[in-house]
Amino acid sequence: MSTLDPVLSHLDAHLDKSLDRLFELLKIQSISTDPAYKAECRKAAEWLVEDLKAIGFDASVRDTPGHPMVVAHHEGAAPDAPHALFYGHYDVQPVDPLNLWEHDPFAPAIEEVEKGRKIITGRGTSDDKGQLMTFVEACRAYKAVHGSLPCRITILFEGEEESGSPSLKPFLKAHADELKADFALVCDTGMWDRETPAISVGLRGLVGEEITIKAADRDLHSGFFGGAAANPIHILSRILADLHDENGRVTLPGFYDGVEETPTQILQMWEGLGRTAESFLGPIGLSVPSGEKGRSVLELTWARPTAEVNGITGGYTGQGFKTVIAAQASAKVSFRLVHSQDPDKIRASFREFVHARIPADCSVEFDAHGGSPAIQLSYDSPLLTKAKDALSDEWPKPAVLIAMGGSIPIVGDFQSMLGMESLLVGFGLEDDRIHSPNEKYELQSFHKGQRSWARILAALAKGTAA
Amino acid sequence: MSTLDPVLSHLDAHLDKSLDRLFELLKIQSISTDPAYKAECRKAAEWLVEDLKAIGFDASVRDTPGHPMVVAHHEGAAPDAPHALFYGHYDVQPVDPLNLWEHDPFAPAIEEVEKGRKIITGRGTSDDKGQLMTFVEACRAYKAVHGSLPCRITILFEGEEESGSPSLKPFLKAHADELKADFALVCDTGMWDRETPAISVGLRGLVGEEITIKAADRDLHSGFFGGAAANPIHILSRILADLHDENGRVTLPGFYDGVEETPTQILQMWEGLGRTAESFLGPIGLSVPSGEKGRSVLELTWARPTAEVNGITGGYTGQGFKTVIAAQASAKVSFRLVHSQDPDKIRASFREFVHARIPADCSVEFDAHGGSPAIQLSYDSPLLTKAKDALSDEWPKPAVLIAMGGSIPIVGDFQSMLGMESLLVGFGLEDDRIHSPNEKYELQSFHKGQRSWARILAALAKGTAA
Repeated sequence: MSTLDPVLSHLDAHLDKSLDRLFELLKIQSISTDPAYKAECRKAAEWLVEDLKAIGFDASVRDTPGHPMVVAHHEGAAPDAPHALFYGHYDVQPVDPLNLWEHDPFAPAIEEVEKGRKIITGRGTSDDKGQLMTFVEACRAYKAVHGSLPCRITILFEGEEESGSPSLKPFLKAHADELKADFALVCDTGMWDRETPAISVGLRGLVGEEITIKAADRDLHSGFFGGAAANPIHILSRILADLHDENGRVTLPGFYDGVEETPTQILQMWEGLGRTAESFLGPIGLSVPSGEKGRSVLELTWARPTAEVNGITGGYTGQGFKTVIAAQASAKVSFRLVHSQDPDKIRASFREFVHARIPADCSVEFDAHGGSPAIQLSYDSPLLTKAKDALSDEWPKPAVLIAMGGSIPIVGDFQSMLGMESLLVGFGLEDDRIHSPNEKYELQSFHKGQRSWARILAALAKGTAA
Repeated sequence: MSTLDPVLSHLDAHLDKSLDRLFELLKIQSISTDPAYKAECRKAAEWLVEDLKAIGFDASVRDTPGHPMVVAHHEGAAPDAPHALFYGHYDVQPVDPLNLWEHDPFAPAIEEVEKGRKIITGRGTSDDKGQLMTFVEACRAYKAVHGSLPCRITILFEGEEESGSPSLKPFLKAHADELKADFALVCDTGMWDRETPAISVGLRGLVGEEITIKAADRDLHSGFFGGAAANPIHILSRILADLHDENGRVTLPGFYDGVEETPTQILQMWEGLGRTAESFLGPIGLSVPSGEKGRSVLELTWARPTAEVNGITGGYTGQGFKTVIAAQASAKVSFRLVHSQDPDKIRASFREFVHARIPADCSVEFDAHGGSPAIQLSYDSPLLTKAKDALSDEWPKPAVLIAMGGSIPIVGDFQSMLGMESLLVGFGLEDDRIHSPNEKYELQSFHKGQRSWARILAALAKGTAA
């Protein structure tokens, strides 16, 4: 008989109790960015430590210069069981403007919004207390049913995710040996839609560069100097225009080094998601994909690198007209990276590209921002296959492998500092209003999320001695 | 015997008296932009009327919705004498910051700054009371010596030049018949250097266009949409970069229609002025002429048209980085026109050029600014030749024909509304600090300026009956 089925039944039978626990955690006002809630943050950490101890974890509150971390360990059933590091965060966003909330953000409740669909309301329900408790409840049920966990588990909860995670890197560095596992599980993500679970296998990296072109040592009158003095806006425009060719490809030498073509079966899976140029761009008032020609919007935003100008300024920008030739002009340029593109090489290539376009009597200054490589799980890793099948067993539709256009810093840190890949699984939905008033988490996400983690843990342990 | 010599002697003999009169006018605080000085502006107009009447002009103060005009008429000695309209302005700039003035700005004085070089200090000495009085004194001397003026003279002094001349066009329109003459004399300009008088024969025109490119209906996250959604800064950069070819020529179709090559002897005259790329661009920290290749900086700024971006803005321009794709981006673009370039055609060509570069799902809005053609005197007009010779007789070095990169609106108004060319002659120097504290006018400019006008009037009248 399966070891999994009784765990799933246990989760079903004890859903109410798990909600009670979640509500206790949700009532703690752990707003990390506001010093007034410092004690509440510690209270949340302590509550989690007590709860994990009750399951049998070796759990403790760890002080940092900011809000504390929670670290907990539990052995696996078998000595060769895989070792997973589960990451989540117990801090929440501020709740202003309070008058836009329909209920007290720290008085969680269950509400039936339509027949058969219930939501849990309150700050932190989806981001991230509800999500992290799905994993804790899966562990609790396993322990209750079998007296053991199928995998060796280390848990890391931080309390500063919503305020820039200042303590995270130093903590990872100081406790690398304790925290290193075979892989990480990160729950801070979402489903594709209400019926389709998703695993994020790619996160684009980012290189940011601010460039400032300097020409004359003061602003000039364009009547007096126009036609003879260098105009830094012209130089800047030329550089930015040269960044793309007529097919939308980025022209930086070496830019596409390390970019792989996405496997056909993955492209087909994405096609099956039905996100067309119309459905993606229509809601923002556009219709024509602007990037590399001949690729779908999902491939463009998930698996292709970009160069985007995020801001530009120079000369007179107020009302009316001023016939000035500016002394300087600047732009903020960012590159989204995929696969194994090297941030340092791309930054160097860009700077060389710019320098080559600066007239002899002008100069350029660079200000570096960001510089993180992309994260890309191998599409055929066993970790991914096991998790995908486990999720597909639980939900109405098979799990899809998706990517994210943006980055999640912790995933890069796990990769670079602890040498671990991350499996990104979460049950949030796009309409969860995280960071906004009236945050909610679907009751289905909380319940089937617990069951999903139980399935995933079982799948990951399969083939080991227990 | 020459009719001119006794006039010049008279001017020399009465320099002190002419200074007394100038000081009276300078003491009137006719700051046009500040309503507190309204009565002072009228007082200056009335003072001028009385002074002109004393010479024998039929002079009057003319009310406008703003500060009054002064209009005065005097017949010429001969019935077929040419008719000149002389223009100047009696209002002055504000004097803030007062603490930077070495003397009371409205207590004019004469100061010897080096051996043999005296200056007249005070607000309005150079801009424009000192300049306009050089002409009035020339008329006075002629009248005193000969009982007549060599030309028929109409004088127009305005009192709003330093505050945008709101009443000027309506006044010119309402009094076109009264003010129309054979040509205009405008004294609001300067010498090439202390020894070299100059006549401005070209003033570049101006077409201004503000363009705003609109893409998505909101700012977008570049992680989520980057690579698929149109970026208006990219579109704008491409447009601006396309405006010039690799030789610095403007690429707008038809842009050079009406642009003439400058005669070789004029180019040689300009070369003789010794303004090199180094001497022109060095003081502003530059060295390489940026415009059309193979032309001198004087030709580029005096006789060639330009396209300049005066301002650009889009996306995030604050400190640090924000990975946004902007909903819109805009630029202010101006074209300096020469010779007979047509402002309307150039505006239309630019708009077509921009439209052709806007993707199907984006849009552009235009906001028109300015729209004045260039002013160009024929290099071989008799008016010019006579004035040039007259100035060359007075000063140590021969007069040069120069141009101005910017525009003087009154000259365009005389051209378009009264059908008159303007002869631009003045005796200001670059270091006169007009609009700034410690404005001054060289005593030599005031004295030899009077003599120059006497010579010019005599030269213009030559060949007529008197």
